[in-house]
Amino acid sequence: MKISDSGEFGFIDRIRKKLIPHGVNVIKGIGDDCAVFRSSKEQLRLLTTDMLVENVHFRLDWMNPHPMGRKSLAVNLSDIAAMGGRPSAALISLGVPAETDLDFLDSFYDGLKSMASEFDVSLAGGDTVRSPHGLVICVAVDGEVSESEILYRSGARPGDLVFLTGMVGSAAAFLDLENHNREYEWQAELRKYHLDPRPHIKEGRIIAESKLASAMIDVSDGVAADLGHICRESNVGAVVESEKIPTDPALLEYCHQFDLDESEFALHGGEDYVLLGTVAEDKAASLESALVSAGCAFHAIGVTDMQGGIKLKSADGRITEIDSSGYDHFKRR
Amino acid sequence: MKISDSGEFGFIDRIRKKLIPHGVNVIKGIGDDCAVFRSSKEQLRLLTTDMLVENVHFRLDWMNPHPMGRKSLAVNLSDIAAMGGRPSAALISLGVPAETDLDFLDSFYDGLKSMASEFDVSLAGGDTVRSPHGLVICVAVDGEVSESEILYRSGARPGDLVFLTGMVGSAAAFLDLENHNREYEWQAELRKYHLDPRPHIKEGRIIAESKLASAMIDVSDGVAADLGHICRESNVGAVVESEKIPTDPALLEYCHQFDLDESEFALHGGEDYVLLGTVAEDKAASLESALVSAGCAFHAIGVTDMQGGIKLKSADGRITEIDSSGYDHFKRR
Repeated sequence: MKISDSGEFGFIDRIRKKLIPHGVNVIKGIGDDCAVFRSSKEQLRLLTTDMLVENVHFRLDWMNPHPMGRKSLAVNLSDIAAMGGRPSAALISLGVPAETDLDFLDSFYDGLKSMASEFDVSLAGGDTVRSPHGLVICVAVDGEVSESEILYRSGARPGDLVFLTGMVGSAAAFLDLENHNREYEWQAELRKYHLDPRPHIKEGRIIAESKLASAMIDVSDGVAADLGHICRESNVGAVVESEKIPTDPALLEYCHQFDLDESEFALHGGEDYVLLGTVAEDKAASLESALVSAGCAFHAIGVTDMQGGIKLKSADGRITEIDSSGYDHFKRR
Repeated sequence: MKISDSGEFGFIDRIRKKLIPHGVNVIKGIGDDCAVFRSSKEQLRLLTTDMLVENVHFRLDWMNPHPMGRKSLAVNLSDIAAMGGRPSAALISLGVPAETDLDFLDSFYDGLKSMASEFDVSLAGGDTVRSPHGLVICVAVDGEVSESEILYRSGARPGDLVFLTGMVGSAAAFLDLENHNREYEWQAELRKYHLDPRPHIKEGRIIAESKLASAMIDVSDGVAADLGHICRESNVGAVVESEKIPTDPALLEYCHQFDLDESEFALHGGEDYVLLGTVAEDKAASLESALVSAGCAFHAIGVTDMQGGIKLKSADGRITEIDSSGYDHFKRR
């Protein structure tokens, strides 16, 4: 069987069953945003890595090296944010075609550096090798969080509110626009979501310190797929109200102009890098106030329940089951 | 300027100047085998990563997935060994072509697992993505060592003995044999060096615990290049005696049969993954005895001096300057 038949998530499940991590200090291996280790009685260490491959995760004709440097670190910082952590250091491995210009790499590293200094992350090393076909970027980030504050995907309880810390769908709409070579007045508004996502470290820390939330993840695969991860790890289901999902006016107008369904982008788009969490209903107001008073956003978008699966409640009250399997890089379409 | 004009080491120097790591807990960033962080008053954490690209670092027609899984972890464990550390956990990122067979990946992960369990390393997660052109493997390993035991590249002093913990040259000779399609009776002996290098974690720990050595590195780029790293970081030079460099009889016989110079492989081959260190002359006997009594090897191959550069002393007493710039993946030949 080929990996394209089994699919990415099938393969990850297969690895997960194979590689049961051991060792007294390993608290969480595969199956959350970061691996979690005990570093002292109180403190936990987080370790995460992401590989980005040219023409799979980015295209050089749509993206300059400076934002690519920023984004390749940002997506890893977002994994640290998802567990409520503080990032500390990053290792950068690059597979680089021999004909790559040094100015390109300088600009990439300047981008990395700017993101690193915004979040006080130390760029502590890595590896640089030749790649015969296209650029490959692999970043590993190390962070920390106290055991009393860490948030996993697995803590949601039936009846919890589902919330987002920012708007979703625009990054995917930008890709759609580029793929269809469309002209659109607010293209620049959509592009910034795709090009320069801000990791929600600040939001993650506020949520973790408040100790009010029950589960958390970052939205990389799309709201439906990432809520699906929380639901499966927590053994709950969820109902999301479509009109409560926060979206940028530029996304709504794009969908209006080209006769597209905005909830497709909002639910299944991905690469949003906002946080998706759950919170007990009686703690939601306190959590909202903690976030809003710090200038951050809190959008309640639904509620978890005891049934499995993710459902969408549309404005007219109609409830439909939605696919939470997420975008699969391997699956044949 | 292209990276192929600047070369790998030129580019690494460029990054090093750009990315001066900051943060109170960063003890060492770019410029040693691992990045080093303080984790407590006494304990340091080590973090290292290596990227392996198909047809640059490995060829699937020479290597089955099981040994490839073992080796992709082994090369990172070797970096932990080089600083005297104990490895604890690994993250595995794979860029996989969609047509890859799942049996291939199962076998790769079985190989990884076997190496991980030999060295008590927890496989704690990673990332799996699609790669349109060939397999890309990026492993990050985390380890620890106490501050009183850690060994850097920078501690060598003039007059120190230079030592190796194992034989060198055979891995490169196997590649040479394959590149020239040669038939050779002891091909299997050479192959095992290339296919299944053993990270010298045990040797590294004995050397670190003894507190006798002054500097250490693992031999990945070749004895000349890696001794060059120690010499540059320590501001010393070195004279290596060619007939003292330990080599496998299968390498000598290969060179004899095909009229090749074995010191080329021994000095410039690389991928040996033994440890190369320096030790004050009056402590060398104690270090040798600590290693040998534990069943490990100690080969004194030369001595450091105050002049820069690396020199080779041949059996007839002739001294020649040798190139310590190492194999450059980018440089045009």
